[in-house]
Amino acid sequence: MRALVLERQHELKLRDIDLPLTVGPGDVRIRIHTVGVCGSDVHYYTHGRIGSFVVESPMVLGHEAAGTVVEVGTGVTGLKPGDRVCMEPGVPDLASRASKLGLYNVDPDVVFWATPPVHGVLTPEVVHPAAFTYRLPDGVSFAEGAMVEPFAVGLQAAVKARIQPGDTAVVTGAGPIGIMTALAALAGGCSRVLVSDLMAEKLAIAGRYPGVTPVDIREASLAEAVSAATGGWGADVVFEASGAPRAYDGIQALLRPGGCLVLIGMPVEPVRFDVSSIAAKEIRIETVFRYANVFDRALAMIASGKVDLKPLITETFPFDDSVAAFERAAEGRPGDVKLQIVL
Amino acid sequence: MRALVLERQHELKLRDIDLPLTVGPGDVRIRIHTVGVCGSDVHYYTHGRIGSFVVESPMVLGHEAAGTVVEVGTGVTGLKPGDRVCMEPGVPDLASRASKLGLYNVDPDVVFWATPPVHGVLTPEVVHPAAFTYRLPDGVSFAEGAMVEPFAVGLQAAVKARIQPGDTAVVTGAGPIGIMTALAALAGGCSRVLVSDLMAEKLAIAGRYPGVTPVDIREASLAEAVSAATGGWGADVVFEASGAPRAYDGIQALLRPGGCLVLIGMPVEPVRFDVSSIAAKEIRIETVFRYANVFDRALAMIASGKVDLKPLITETFPFDDSVAAFERAAEGRPGDVKLQIVL
Amino acid sequence: MRALVLERQHELKLRDIDLPLTVGPGDVRIRIHTVGVCGSDVHYYTHGRIGSFVVESPMVLGHEAAGTVVEVGTGVTGLKPGDRVCMEPGVPDLASRASKLGLYNVDPDVVFWATPPVHGVLTPEVVHPAAFTYRLPDGVSFAEGAMVEPFAVGLQAAVKARIQPGDTAVVTGAGPIGIMTALAALAGGCSRVLVSDLMAEKLAIAGRYPGVTPVDIREASLAEAVSAATGGWGADVVFEASGAPRAYDGIQALLRPGGCLVLIGMPVEPVRFDVSSIAAKEIRIETVFRYANVFDRALAMIASGKVDLKPLITETFPFDDSVAAFERAAEGRPGDVKLQIVL
Amino acid sequence: MRALVLERQHELKLRDIDLPLTVGPGDVRIRIHTVGVCGSDVHYYTHGRIGSFVVESPMVLGHEAAGTVVEVGTGVTGLKPGDRVCMEPGVPDLASRASKLGLYNVDPDVVFWATPPVHGVLTPEVVHPAAFTYRLPDGVSFAEGAMVEPFAVGLQAAVKARIQPGDTAVVTGAGPIGIMTALAALAGGCSRVLVSDLMAEKLAIAGRYPGVTPVDIREASLAEAVSAATGGWGADVVFEASGAPRAYDGIQALLRPGGCLVLIGMPVEPVRFDVSSIAAKEIRIETVFRYANVFDRALAMIASGKVDLKPLITETFPFDDSVAAFERAAEGRPGDVKLQIVL
Repeated sequence: MRALVLERQHELKLRDIDLPLTVGPGDVRIRIHTVGVCGSDVHYYTHGRIGSFVVESPMVLGHEAAGTVVEVGTGVTGLKPGDRVCMEPGVPDLASRASKLGLYNVDPDVVFWATPPVHGVLTPEVVHPAAFTYRLPDGVSFAEGAMVEPFAVGLQAAVKARIQPGDTAVVTGAGPIGIMTALAALAGGCSRVLVSDLMAEKLAIAGRYPGVTPVDIREASLAEAVSAATGGWGADVVFEASGAPRAYDGIQALLRPGGCLVLIGMPVEPVRFDVSSIAAKEIRIETVFRYANVFDRALAMIASGKVDLKPLITETFPFDDSVAAFERAAEGRPGDVKLQIVL
Repeated sequence: MRALVLERQHELKLRDIDLPLTVGPGDVRIRIHTVGVCGSDVHYYTHGRIGSFVVESPMVLGHEAAGTVVEVGTGVTGLKPGDRVCMEPGVPDLASRASKLGLYNVDPDVVFWATPPVHGVLTPEVVHPAAFTYRLPDGVSFAEGAMVEPFAVGLQAAVKARIQPGDTAVVTGAGPIGIMTALAALAGGCSRVLVSDLMAEKLAIAGRYPGVTPVDIREASLAEAVSAATGGWGADVVFEASGAPRAYDGIQALLRPGGCLVLIGMPVEPVRFDVSSIAAKEIRIETVFRYANVFDRALAMIASGKVDLKPLITETFPFDDSVAAFERAAEGRPGDVKLQIVL
Repeated sequence: MRALVLERQHELKLRDIDLPLTVGPGDVRIRIHTVGVCGSDVHYYTHGRIGSFVVESPMVLGHEAAGTVVEVGTGVTGLKPGDRVCMEPGVPDLASRASKLGLYNVDPDVVFWATPPVHGVLTPEVVHPAAFTYRLPDGVSFAEGAMVEPFAVGLQAAVKARIQPGDTAVVTGAGPIGIMTALAALAGGCSRVLVSDLMAEKLAIAGRYPGVTPVDIREASLAEAVSAATGGWGADVVFEASGAPRAYDGIQALLRPGGCLVLIGMPVEPVRFDVSSIAAKEIRIETVFRYANVFDRALAMIASGKVDLKPLITETFPFDDSVAAFERAAEGRPGDVKLQIVL
Repeated sequence: MRALVLERQHELKLRDIDLPLTVGPGDVRIRIHTVGVCGSDVHYYTHGRIGSFVVESPMVLGHEAAGTVVEVGTGVTGLKPGDRVCMEPGVPDLASRASKLGLYNVDPDVVFWATPPVHGVLTPEVVHPAAFTYRLPDGVSFAEGAMVEPFAVGLQAAVKARIQPGDTAVVTGAGPIGIMTALAALAGGCSRVLVSDLMAEKLAIAGRYPGVTPVDIREASLAEAVSAATGGWGADVVFEASGAPRAYDGIQALLRPGGCLVLIGMPVEPVRFDVSSIAAKEIRIETVFRYANVFDRALAMIASGKVDLKPLITETFPFDDSVAAFERAAEGRPGDVKLQIVL
């Protein structure tokens, strides 16, 4: 089968590759329609690794996908051929201790698309467990379906924050995940979200959404903006989505007493962390690892119109131009939020 | 001072009455601008009592109020004369065990406007603790300010539900509190809310809001509507806002396994409650008594445009027509959501 | 294989019956050592049904079991032949929506031992998923292992209550589940538990445990005892474990403002439920349906000595005397907490 | 009045000093009986400051206190002269936003004994709000009463952890707060606690309590000990009570997926914090700033015998030997847990 294969660092080819397509009990076979290009895909392309995950043999890229069910395995009752779907790319051992607790995303045995050595889905067909395949509601397009995966990260962050209705939130970092976190926070109950960055193009995209106040930290103090917005009380939640170590400097000043800090951006190195200052406000810190149990929520939010991800799709490429799509993504243009590939 | 005085059941007079206006430390004096007519005010008028609270001497009505600060007591730093404000009508003993826990609404010593023998605020001026007086953000009108109190009940329900982003909710009962609960639930993270009633006028008002699906239970099965909307899974949250005993029949069928039932409507008599059926889904039940710590949240939601209460203000009466306003309210026209009095 | 078979209501036989013993992937085969006699087993014997579950064909009884692994299926890594174990009797569909959320006990497709038409385990060998089979720590006997299942119900109640360290709890009903709930509550953080009943023998058994205050409600007012114990504030948690409808009368008087009521006992008929009184304290109500994710916790508590279930084992019968054990259980002697059968 | 006055760094005198003793409404006047010597008192003595709190004028030390009520102000109903009590040393503005939320410990305006420039209570009499004065149950001694304050820190940590019954916890650091955290965790629902340190004397004291497993990290790997104790799964909760920066290295390895890290020890400098590794297990981090709403819980736990603090009182000094007590405390003998002064 044809697929976008990362042969090794810097070398990407659209070529035939042998991929298993056996439909086991509980599985569905899906004709892939749209796949988003994710920063992690690009990072494997440009660096050949992410942390301890190293590309040591050719690997198909892509894990943000939507398509159509073409075959269902025995025991599958919730899906049928013809159903339009999107897929959760991580498959845990459902009998593990973490999965039984509902924390299947942190099951150490989870198998995740396009994470070495597991192949991704930039290829015409894929087999996946029905339990991690979600029907797209009417009116939700394949393009939106393929956006569920990155939105799910923001949504997991919003769930972890335990937002209370009317909360004020801050998102540090206006990259794709930062923006999607802001949208999840607003749809998830916040009355408003201040989004900070130091690139005007990114802030402009975030600022188009009602409820978002962009803060350009080259020109203004985020702490002052938050203080002004909250009468000196501080934000209820801060979502750190930049991964920049300096975002941690004085981050507690953004929060109200008893507020919550959610860590989404993953700094490459350990950060300097001021325990005493954070404890003086008794701040709760939540961390996010991918997501669990949010794909159906994300689809409900998109279907109801509470979240509109379409403006975040910057450009769409045909499958034949997949390599070009990745080259473009590797440029890292600040105005690019999401590039997608249609098969 | 002139005031709308409930002399006894069925007898309401706009007359002079002696009311204390001493501004103590921490207090503010407020010029009242707008007061909403609440079902409880009307109930005291028509029945002379609510449960064990009996009108035994003349009592000023009104507890949903907004106005302007005209004087501040010693130690008040957050408010100044000229500030437009709305007020939380219950004042607890802040040193009580419940208040120290943050549960000041269930402090047994709370003093609440227009609850016998405490006077309400349908009178030109009132003194209130600054700690329970909230500045109206720019763009929030007095009329909206006077709607914060009833909205706060719905918001308290939404907080208690611990809504997760994308939840599907049901509200049984499309009265004022039911509608405001639906709005709080939507702004508080729900992707959609089904609202049921058996009066078309009420459902029509609720149904004007995006995200609300009205269900006329004279014509359709609510259980079937919920099942259809959720693929047979059930709602995440049911808000019981009708107070009708029969709303409890089979209510668990509306909920998903592990869902939450929030009781807002207060049936006059004990209801029949099917413990086994409710336990079979391990449903959590939350109850609501007024509200605590939500007025600032409500104002943030109104100011940001996430909640629009203006369409719920059916008609406004001048203070001189207060008695007429109450007579109209006592009629209980299904199309009347909120009547307000302007002083 | 030999088994204790409930042929129909009132007719119990120890006889040969054909039971499948195929060890599939992820399964273990277990040599049964000890099985406790549960009230539900006895109820099927005496009534032929529990609610909508009706014994329509011969069914093996027993679901509180411990034994020794004698064979493991492919893919089983955590257990090996010779391991002493106890088993969680309900097996859900791990790919279901409820299971993915960690709520596998309320998965509608759960299959539960000795619940018609599923056979129980009063038989020498049984096959079970390794994921629901728990190794007994050193020092935990088979008899204690077979007590984990009923204790798990009390533990689930304690988890649901979200006990805070030092809480005062009340347990209404000193039957086996009531006592085990009291023990779970004490080991789970309560500083003390008042246990009420109207049978002196039961209270005497409960009262032997430090931290338990027995209250004989034929002689004393439970509300007064709670008030005295808490300086008039009320209990943090009330566990209703009697299933008696009249336990609901005035139950809110036992609780502090903002307290929690956990419903464990299952009344046969709907109860009269005073919503307004319960809401006036903003009480949270939790319900319990069996248990999820608590067997390992139960074993840790038993192994560490925080919970001692041994005094609750009233008498042990050999497998050959199983019918006699059930006849004894059916007598319902108040001093009998747990009867066990050893194979 | 006579008092132990810290004149400036290194200079401590027992001398007369003018202290206000006016009993206002809601206040009580207390004859001090026992005061514990806290690390923070000693730190002011030896360093003249803690962070931004600097001793700039003579200050009375002491904030862990128990005594007897000798006078009550107007409006005090819960206490009367002769009542034996202990006191919560921090008094917030009860009308503040944080206090209304129940988070009075993080009210920025809290006034705390023996924190510059506020005087402490090593003096015969003190006036305090009744709302922060707690009656000692029968059987709880003054010495235990004066231990409530430091125990409250451990209890706050246990509350924040949201312990589930049967949890396994780790406490890093066997100083006074570490040991009290371990005791709070055990009484608060943990089945067992591993306590690590590198001083054998401290571990020996901790290890005397049932349920505590001491781990000497000069001789053994804490990670291996935890792994062995939990079958490789990890601890549910880690309480960091050492304040040592290196305790943060690899701390995530001690925790299970989805576990909780509670930060109690306050490192002087920012620590290196490995966000990615902590997020890979989606660990929740809680911080602790003193305590709120736990004094009554602490007393209930001591009175019921669930927590025994008496063995932690190393030595008692008469008031006249206060300076000697502080000199001894400043030595930092590893076997000294708590020194107390009796007035």
